[in-house]
Formats: sequence, C-alpha cells, structure tokens
Amino acid sequence: MSREITACIIIIGNEILSGRTQDTNISHIAKVIGAWGIQVHHCRVIPDDEHIIVQTINEVRPAYDYVFTTGGIGPTHDDITAVSIAKAFDVPVIQHPDIEAVIRQRPASAEVMASRLLMARVPEGARLIDNPSGGPQGFAIENVHVMAGIPRVMQAMLSSLEGKLRRGAVMHSRTVRAYLGESSIADALAGIQRNYPDVDIGSYPFLKEDRYGTHLVARGSDPAQLVAVIDQIMQAVRERGEEPVELREDGAA
Amino acid sequence: MSREITACIIIIGNEILSGRTQDTNISHIAKVIGAWGIQVHHCRVIPDDEHIIVQTINEVRPAYDYVFTTGGIGPTHDDITAVSIAKAFDVPVIQHPDIEAVIRQRPASAEVMASRLLMARVPEGARLIDNPSGGPQGFAIENVHVMAGIPRVMQAMLSSLEGKLRRGAVMHSRTVRAYLGESSIADALAGIQRNYPDVDIGSYPFLKEDRYGTHLVARGSDPAQLVAVIDQIMQAVRERGEEPVELREDGAA
Repeated sequence: MSREITACIIIIGNEILSGRTQDTNISHIAKVIGAWGIQVHHCRVIPDDEHIIVQTINEVRPAYDYVFTTGGIGPTHDDITAVSIAKAFDVPVIQHPDIEAVIRQRPASAEVMASRLLMARVPEGARLIDNPSGGPQGFAIENVHVMAGIPRVMQAMLSSLEGKLRRGAVMHSRTVRAYLGESSIADALAGIQRNYPDVDIGSYPFLKEDRYGTHLVARGSDPAQLVAVIDQIMQAVRERGEEPVELREDGAA
Repeated sequence: MSREITACIIIIGNEILSGRTQDTNISHIAKVIGAWGIQVHHCRVIPDDEHIIVQTINEVRPAYDYVFTTGGIGPTHDDITAVSIAKAFDVPVIQHPDIEAVIRQRPASAEVMASRLLMARVPEGARLIDNPSGGPQGFAIENVHVMAGIPRVMQAMLSSLEGKLRRGAVMHSRTVRAYLGESSIADALAGIQRNYPDVDIGSYPFLKEDRYGTHLVARGSDPAQLVAVIDQIMQAVRERGEEPVELREDGAA
C-alpha cells in the first residue's frame, strides 16, 4: 500500500475566531483532497496576525506533506497572508505579472487599481494556483498552498489542483445507521476494532425525529476489510434487535 | 480597560478531519464566550489520538486563559479524551461518583452499563461541568474544559458555565453592508484603521442575488470608538456613490 499522504489546513481569519462566520472550508477541503488520497490530519484557525501566521506556517510545513491555507489574500489592510508567507520562507514579495494581467483586465481608477494590485503580491518563487472563478490566482510555495477565504473562490482554486498533487491511498467510508444507543454496541465495536486495526471505526450518536440512534462509520483504504467490518457491525446491530441500514456516501438511506 | 481574557478551542474528532461532519462547535463557542468577554484566539482540530491530544493540551494550556475541548467523551473505544487529559496533567483517572449516579438513573444490562460507565471517567481532581441536556456531565481541570462533541450536548454544558469564568472586556461588533467591491474602499479602510488601532476593522466580500458587495465589520470593546469608526466607514461608502446599510447583529438589514 502506498504511504499515507497527509495535510494540514490553516484557516486565517478573525471572522471565524469571533464566530461571526461559520467556517465551511475545512470540511470541503477535507472531502475533496480525501478523494485524491490526501488525508487531513490537523487544522488550525488563527487570527490575521503576521507573527502568528509566520510561526504557524513554519511549525506545520515540515510536519505534513501538504499545507493548505485559506483567507487573507484580498485587497484590504487586513489581507496579510501573502506577505506573511513570504516572511515564513524568508523570501521577498514580488508583484506577479500573470496575476497583474488578470487584475488589469477589469478597468478601474488609479486608486482602486492600486488596491486591487495588492492581490498580485506573492512570495518570490511561488507557483500560481489557477482561479477558475475568474479573479486573481492563488499561489503555492514548496508544499504550502495559499487560497482565498471566500468558499466559492477557494473551491474553484482547489479544483484546479486536481491531478497536480501526490496521491496516497484513498480512504473509503461506509456508514450504518442503527437506532441503538452507543453504549449498547460499544463492546462489539471495540472487539471488531481490535481485529481490524487498519480500519478506523467511529460511532456518532444522533437524534432524529425524536429517536436516538448511532451512525457507525468504518473508514479505511482496503475495500475488502471495510466489507468485513461493515458485515460484522450489521450483525452486531441485528443481535441487539435492531435492523441496521447502510447509508450511501451522501448520507441517504 | 480590563485585560483581555483569551481562549483556545480544541475540536477532537476524526469525523471533522475527514470532512464527514461539518463542525459548528467553533462558531457557537466563540459567540457564546465572546458575549462573556472571553476572546477565542486559536482553534485546532485534531484526531482521536492519545499522543496528539496530550501534546496539544500541554502546548496550549499555558498559552491561553481558557481551553475548551469538544468530542471524545462518549462510551465507545474511540472516546479517549478523558484518559488523554488525565495523562496530560499526569494524574490518575477515576470514576466520578456524581457522573456514575446520573448514568445509573437509566437501567441497563450489566454489559451496557459497563460501557456507559466509561463516561464517568475523569482525571482525579477534576471539577464537573453540568449537563442540562440530561446526560453525563463534562469536566474541567485547571483551565481546561472538556465537553461533548454533539452540538446540542456541548451547548448545554457550555451554557452551565455562564457566570463561572473570568470576564474581560466584551467585544462589540457593528457591520455595514455596501454594494461596493473591497478594492474601492480599501484605501479608506486602511486610513480609518490607522486612526483607530484598538478597533479591528475587517472587510468580507459577498455575492447576493447576483450583486457583489462587501460587509465592513468593526469590532472593539469601546462603543464610542465603534460609533466613530462606523460613521467614517458609512461616509466613505457614500463618497463612493453607494448607500450603506447598517446590519443588526443577527445580520438582518
């Protein structure tokens, strides 16, 4: 089996830390790159603070195969990600001609254009990340990928990376819904987990239409092991007097 | 002005890292404790891994006034938070009689009860966090508060902490909506920010009914400064030919 390829996500933005904005970038990135065989092992949410961005990037970039950041690459005073990433790598900031060309396609007054051109700043030596949503590009330097914070724009940038990153084994996931309390099946799950150490078995209680139940999730890279694990989980549910339902990957029954 | 009181949130759970589950705990905790005068400065999402939990807790607990964790305190094999927190503090794990009493209120077979009683494990010396949703309690040890991962249960536990934590200055927030691009107003914002260093001014572009606009947000603890900042922002918007609309805190116009 190929070595696991790992990733760390850094969400940069005071608006997430204040609770004003609900982050959705973590789950989107995790799902998309998960399908490419890259596993998110760690995420952080940090403020728009140069010192903290520099320190965080330099702490995580040697520890994971890939780092993805979102946020702070717009045209205003609080958009300090590009400058901070350059500091982390100890390289100068340049105005990238390809981003500049995209920005200059839309006419504007000199003052507005000057602000917009701040979005062309990248660390020297950075590669560009295409932006199919039409605006200025993101960039990557070594293993750090810097994307916009706006979900729609980030999603466009991320999609353009498909096929360009190293792939590890893809983790597959199967989910069984059972109207049982977690405790009723805890023992059986622990036993199955011991027999299949390469499968990650999780249980997630839920409340639906006033009934308590548990989602039993098996994740792993070997489909045959997942089949065996799911069969044993379904049998354990039946032994407890409930009929298990396997859910599709989109959560439908 | 009182010293700032800071917090770090640790989301423990493979289901968030895989993207299977959309986290909502960060924004909820940030908003609730923000209203109590506690500012979230940092968040992490980490896997159900004892070594990583221990290392993370010991890294962040000296750095923030409060640490809040969610996840991993249920009755199954992957619920390792209590044991990991005890290791981080180098104290034994005990079965807490008050949590045990809550658990024993609901009858169950010996096997199921044994699993459920795993939820009574806490580090020796921990204080309990009430659980108004009716299940087993959470716990706190020193400045680390350990809560359930299920949002409804976490929210109940968090609400029980009201009035029990130190309070700093409450940050107030005012938001203006303007149908302007960020770049059009970037210069003005930078100038206002320079004049009011204690106010945190952010700009967040949005797309609504096919119109691009920007939310201009001012956050700070001094309401008089916020009034001055918002007045200047609204004037800058009007000078650019648009009529600004101040939004209520719930985001309505």
